Amino acid sequence: MAKAVAPRGFARERVLEAALALFAEHGVNGTSLQMIADRLGVSKAAVYYQFHSKEEIVLAVIQPVFDDMARLVRIAEAMSTPEAQQEVAVNGMVDFTVRHRRVTAVFHGDPAIDTLVNSRADLSDIIERLTVMLLGTDPDVTTRIVISVLASGMYGSATDPKLSDIDDGDLHQVLLDCCQRLMRTRGAIGDLRTRGAIGI
Amino acid sequence: MAKAVAPRGFARERVLEAALALFAEHGVNGTSLQMIADRLGVSKAAVYYQFHSKEEIVLAVIQPVFDDMARLVRIAEAMSTPEAQQEVAVNGMVDFTVRHRRVTAVFHGDPAIDTLVNSRADLSDIIERLTVMLLGTDPDVTTRIVISVLASGMYGSATDPKLSDIDDGDLHQVLLDCCQRLMRTRGAIGDLRTRGAIGI
Repeated sequence: MAKAVAPRGFARERVLEAALALFAEHGVNGTSLQMIADRLGVSKAAVYYQFHSKEEIVLAVIQPVFDDMARLVRIAEAMSTPEAQQEVAVNGMVDFTVRHRRVTAVFHGDPAIDTLVNSRADLSDIIERLTVMLLGTDPDVTTRIVISVLASGMYGSATDPKLSDIDDGDLHQVLLDCCQRLMRTRGAIGDLRTRGAIGI
Repeated sequence: MAKAVAPRGFARERVLEAALALFAEHGVNGTSLQMIADRLGVSKAAVYYQFHSKEEIVLAVIQPVFDDMARLVRIAEAMSTPEAQQEVAVNGMVDFTVRHRRVTAVFHGDPAIDTLVNSRADLSDIIERLTVMLLGTDPDVTTRIVISVLASGMYGSATDPKLSDIDDGDLHQVLLDCCQRLMRTRGAIGDLRTRGAIGI
């Protein structure tokens, strides 16, 4: 039985690999099952044997990212203080963003992926819980801006084609350092409130 | 003569305003001159009277951003040290990103805009000079990552729909603070080099 399963697993990986390369070049909406089959030099039926729709392929590509994210959310939610929850969430995000750098490059900013994730309760639930870990339940203006800078800065740099020669270890180290510095911006909350109160 | 010019100027502004709203909704490639005319309740010929192509409209929308960017580059290039050049460039970027927040939201990440900017020597020259001000001439790994985090974080948050209720003054203040903290990450350069040298 192991012998029968192995080639199928291998073929699945080859389809996912080809799909990821095509998604990166043409976006999800610009990629068809036929293009994936052509890239692999097989028939469309051979791709259908592994996956019954493009959506299934996309879900299989992003599943490992969401598995890591779900694990991270569970760890963060078990922390005893909101500060510790936030710290775990940020450090874990750096980790899976770098680990899934190639998938993130496809995943980030493609409206087709956003639509798919929003249509799936299990996936959007993970994102929502991660957002609560990052922002807390009643975030002030500074925290909302800092977390937005942090998330878009992290994803943007991990997917920056100009940084593709930089190895994962160096990227991981510098991103962690950037995030830790950004989190200290929360000190500005008081200043901002005071500034607002005196109407400058 | 002033009387004859005023309505034309007004009509131009109305076209740009409608175009910007449509670009935000449908992207540049998804917006036609006909859609702009429909939005304004005028004929396509009336739009043609102001602008001869969609490209002209896009250029008119992004021109004020590039004007600010060119002014910033001139100021930065006149600074006496690379550190001062970089600081001026970063602070100036926060300023024009917030000032042109709505245009940035359209501008940022639309491949049609990237193609247009790359095809125009005057515009791509400004971006290239700003990049030199930010990175210096021979940037190390840490600087390249930090500047990428900073640029994508700044644009990402200024265009984040979840932050649209936050006023420009607060956004400006927190972004400046975020950038100043990020710039201090350059201190990690030494650590990174040491780490690389001892092969961990």
